[in-house]
Amino acid sequence: MNKKMIFATLGKITVSEAGLMLLPLLVSLIYGEWTVALSFLAAIALALVVGFSLYFSCRTKNKLIFAKEGFIIVAGAWLIMSAIGAIPFVLSGDIPSYIDAFFETVSGFTTTGASALTDVESLSRGALFWRSFTHWVGGMGVLVFIMALLPSFSDRSIHIMRAEMPGPIVGKIVPRARQTARILYVIYFVMTVAEVILLLFGDMPLFDSVVHAFGTAGTGGFGIKSDSIASYSPYLQWVITVFMFLFGVNFNIYYLMLLKKFKSVFKSGELWAYVGIAAVATVAICINILPTFNNFWDALRASAFQVSSIITTTGFSTVDFDVWPTFSKVILAALMFTGACAGSTGGGFKVTRLVILFKSIKQELKRMIHPRSVRAIKFEGKVVDQTTLNGVGIYLGIYMMCLVAVIIAISFEPFDFETSFSAALSCFNNIGPGFSAVGPMASYAEYTGFSKIILSFAMLFGRLEIYPLLIALTPSTWTKK
Amino acid sequence: MNKKMIFATLGKITVSEAGLMLLPLLVSLIYGEWTVALSFLAAIALALVVGFSLYFSCRTKNKLIFAKEGFIIVAGAWLIMSAIGAIPFVLSGDIPSYIDAFFETVSGFTTTGASALTDVESLSRGALFWRSFTHWVGGMGVLVFIMALLPSFSDRSIHIMRAEMPGPIVGKIVPRARQTARILYVIYFVMTVAEVILLLFGDMPLFDSVVHAFGTAGTGGFGIKSDSIASYSPYLQWVITVFMFLFGVNFNIYYLMLLKKFKSVFKSGELWAYVGIAAVATVAICINILPTFNNFWDALRASAFQVSSIITTTGFSTVDFDVWPTFSKVILAALMFTGACAGSTGGGFKVTRLVILFKSIKQELKRMIHPRSVRAIKFEGKVVDQTTLNGVGIYLGIYMMCLVAVIIAISFEPFDFETSFSAALSCFNNIGPGFSAVGPMASYAEYTGFSKIILSFAMLFGRLEIYPLLIALTPSTWTKK
Repeated sequence: MNKKMIFATLGKITVSEAGLMLLPLLVSLIYGEWTVALSFLAAIALALVVGFSLYFSCRTKNKLIFAKEGFIIVAGAWLIMSAIGAIPFVLSGDIPSYIDAFFETVSGFTTTGASALTDVESLSRGALFWRSFTHWVGGMGVLVFIMALLPSFSDRSIHIMRAEMPGPIVGKIVPRARQTARILYVIYFVMTVAEVILLLFGDMPLFDSVVHAFGTAGTGGFGIKSDSIASYSPYLQWVITVFMFLFGVNFNIYYLMLLKKFKSVFKSGELWAYVGIAAVATVAICINILPTFNNFWDALRASAFQVSSIITTTGFSTVDFDVWPTFSKVILAALMFTGACAGSTGGGFKVTRLVILFKSIKQELKRMIHPRSVRAIKFEGKVVDQTTLNGVGIYLGIYMMCLVAVIIAISFEPFDFETSFSAALSCFNNIGPGFSAVGPMASYAEYTGFSKIILSFAMLFGRLEIYPLLIALTPSTWTKK
Repeated sequence: MNKKMIFATLGKITVSEAGLMLLPLLVSLIYGEWTVALSFLAAIALALVVGFSLYFSCRTKNKLIFAKEGFIIVAGAWLIMSAIGAIPFVLSGDIPSYIDAFFETVSGFTTTGASALTDVESLSRGALFWRSFTHWVGGMGVLVFIMALLPSFSDRSIHIMRAEMPGPIVGKIVPRARQTARILYVIYFVMTVAEVILLLFGDMPLFDSVVHAFGTAGTGGFGIKSDSIASYSPYLQWVITVFMFLFGVNFNIYYLMLLKKFKSVFKSGELWAYVGIAAVATVAICINILPTFNNFWDALRASAFQVSSIITTTGFSTVDFDVWPTFSKVILAALMFTGACAGSTGGGFKVTRLVILFKSIKQELKRMIHPRSVRAIKFEGKVVDQTTLNGVGIYLGIYMMCLVAVIIAISFEPFDFETSFSAALSCFNNIGPGFSAVGPMASYAEYTGFSKIILSFAMLFGRLEIYPLLIALTPSTWTKK
């Protein structure tokens, strides 16, 4: 294994994080938060020291890496960025406990949006900005970002790309590394700017607009108010609803639109499934909660916002959906599983996998009835090879096992079944809020440090789709040749 | 499709049910319950009329059937047996509502043990006996039983056998239909008698012993007391604990023991996994609940009983585990998923599938790290073919989709999240009790008729491992050539 290359790359990534922290540093300075600015300065200094030390002590001429190294770099990158990104929160006094700060930063970079804070409004502007900016950075994938900057990977970066791109790869953009990364990056940037403008248009202050656009783009969900998005106007809520939904779409669709291949877009089974699930859920919940609202439009807005927020695994909220009837909560819990499309910034199991699974089930039924007339499964017009098909079933297996393990690990806490179940489900699928004691108007503050660490790793496992971290944490990966 | 053969076979099965009802009729007569006896007589008459009408109107010389017909016969058999088996409860006045009686009978034949009754102790002896006898009949599979009686299927009965035998078929007993059925039947009978004797030995009355042995053997869980097994002595509780566990073992293991192939028994990965999961769960729960018990042995007994009851999907209880700490409840919920071994009378996802899934995950990880060095997966010493491997993943997919559908369908009821979730989980996996409003000391009585029908079908889908009923209920199965 090319350990040198791994650590040298992690060094570069750490240096890049120092660069990223210049932005919150600037924000602190603008708002005159001198202690906060100093904290960022200290963290930047540390990141530079750690990063350059790693890079210069490990740089190597052997740039050959394989899938294994790619996975480890991805897992290592998220861990080291979270570990260092947590430091400014502690130094500035915004989040005194390092474990809490680590939880918050992991939650940021994994675009989860689960918070251990009880009073988010007391945070400094610099801290609030950094918190949301981690979503934006994490959302598109730190490594797609990094990759565009680092030409040294050349074509081998396909491995990192694979590990990073959420969801199974079927007819996805051919990962010509740098070029693809740039295209995705531009789409991401343009959409974020568009949201900021539309939010500004609805009289949301600039700071709020930028921060919420970050949270939406990364499908993260960190807000800057205790009631999340509830106190903003209906117009602003609708804008966020639409953008959350758009960021949950496979970016391949936007790429196809740029290429004017509208026919392919229209024929995308994944897109239709995603739209269909969201539409059905919105209508069902709207009818269910109608009696508790003054009029239809308020109920529809609340329903559409929450559905869009949960299916894309963003986690913003405009109402306390924990008090909704069980039916609506069950639908939301099901959407937590579903997740968004592959190749989007959303997390979860992914609609893509669900569609492939559904087709596999249909094929299996046909096989049982007419064993000799089995046809290949097609997805987005292409035949899905057997390895990908098996992979989906196996992923569901490991996904369920990890979920159960997380639920068990945090169930020592003095909370009820619903809390433990939804906390694990929500963190593992990178959503943020759950039900009961971790509902949208509550937080993870009451959890012990042990559980916060477990949940932090649940977020990382979920965001990286399990395998990279599992491979990195398997001792035999490091010992065997 | 050979519709005639399907209905003729269902006719035979209905006639057999008339024969089965002679036993509860006899019990009613012994206890002098004349109304109850008359109810069984009426039901027997109806079963004979329906059965013979079906048989004589549909009998055919074309005895050729394929997998499709086999699945439909299995699904039809469970439906018709439940529909007719519910009648005596209604006529005798034991369960006045037909929907409740149907729920109870489905719960019996599917060996679930979920009850819609609030006061089981007020039931007549005849009704109590029939209730538990349906477990025994259902447990080993109505069709294995029927098959041993009906030679007309000859070798084609393999299809029924496949549909009936729970779990994926890997190195299972070669289904030489009648012969195999007889061997399984004898093992089942001998083990039931052994349990009756051991219960009698502990001063349990004969009626109670027989009825509880039925409930244990079928991994059903209907008791005759409101507190299930709680009021029986520790000795009796241990006997039931052990026998529940034994009936959750793959019957192939007992078959191998009869053939003195102890080495194969000892090497069974499935058996070790089953024992291991149960042991770890017992110890974990025992430690967790220890503070609420007077001494270690009481805690161990309560823990072992509940673990054995839930993992085998029996559903007896000796304590109200709904009041246990969340950790213990989460473990029990995980065991509800797990289920027992394939080829046993237990339900659930099956340990067998879990083991295969686990091996697939390990292989997938290896494939990711060293794409060129992938070896075949072995289970019980044999290479598992790709179709079986895929089947496990696909089954997990359809299993999860069905479970979510059931949860959504019953979540209209005015119960909390935990109730809806655990009621669906418990019925679908053929366990019986859940948590909260459907906890071990509560019942499904409060559910509406609509939900009781949904849950009845959940039990049927779970027991028949989804496919047979799904195929039977697909309109195209009936229309297409």
